[in-house]
Amino acid sequence: MPRTAETASFKFNHTMLRVKDPKVSLAFYQDIIGMELLSEKKFADFTLYFLAFNHDGRELTPEEKEATRFAREGILELTHNHGTESDPNFQGYASGNSDPGRGFGHIAITVDDVEVACERFEKLGVQFKKRPSDGKMRHIAFILDPDGYWIEVVPNVLKL
Amino acid sequence: MPRTAETASFKFNHTMLRVKDPKVSLAFYQDIIGMELLSEKKFADFTLYFLAFNHDGRELTPEEKEATRFAREGILELTHNHGTESDPNFQGYASGNSDPGRGFGHIAITVDDVEVACERFEKLGVQFKKRPSDGKMRHIAFILDPDGYWIEVVPNVLKL
Repeated sequence: MPRTAETASFKFNHTMLRVKDPKVSLAFYQDIIGMELLSEKKFADFTLYFLAFNHDGRELTPEEKEATRFAREGILELTHNHGTESDPNFQGYASGNSDPGRGFGHIAITVDDVEVACERFEKLGVQFKKRPSDGKMRHIAFILDPDGYWIEVVPNVLKL
Repeated sequence: MPRTAETASFKFNHTMLRVKDPKVSLAFYQDIIGMELLSEKKFADFTLYFLAFNHDGRELTPEEKEATRFAREGILELTHNHGTESDPNFQGYASGNSDPGRGFGHIAITVDDVEVACERFEKLGVQFKKRPSDGKMRHIAFILDPDGYWIEVVPNVLKL
């Protein structure tokens, strides 16, 4: 159904997750998942990190990175509340997949080859919730990010 | 930074949220937010609904809708565990923004005009967490979806 004029400009821009330690999470989402850091906004008590996959096939200028932050879909925003990374009493964040706190489920990345992607994740020490060989759904996997959030790994094969 | 060959095919395909009542949630995300239902997958105990904004400016065929489900970014997956909609003991899902269960923060939609979008949301009876006029950040708003998940409404003005 074509959209009404009232919602014609709307985009699903980003998903926000809180993270304990931005050094660990940025290394994970950049080096292992392959996203690019577009923007970093530091406030008194927290810092926001905006990441996305670069589909342009070229390096973006700092201005383009900043501009693209609200101009596209598929952005991941990580919120770091300062101090959690070194607070011995910090209990960690809920993944959303067990009580109490059930609600949010996961983010998902599509890949050309789930098996190949997962072999690489395994070599890089990524934790698995479900390997492709586990359970009934052999064509998908679930990995865990450093805070325990689930990331589904799905094939992007359904193309016309 | 250009991506390595190993992650070149990766896309941030979707974000999954559990919902209590799909009738209520589908009406909200389709009629109020303006997303389109791409795919519905019914299993024994649960049903998955995949929604996204249609940026193509034309009606998609059923085959295209199904194919686009894993071929693009900006998909919202809603999971309905059968029975929650009529279970008097169902406690509801956690938004992720308070303890216990803090972790997930929100999804965000970018819009041409936050004021205009919010006036429409108000007329349609949408619940607000933060109106544009509340607090310091006058250019953004937070609305609540039927399960209480936060949806940030942000201007998409940062364009080159």
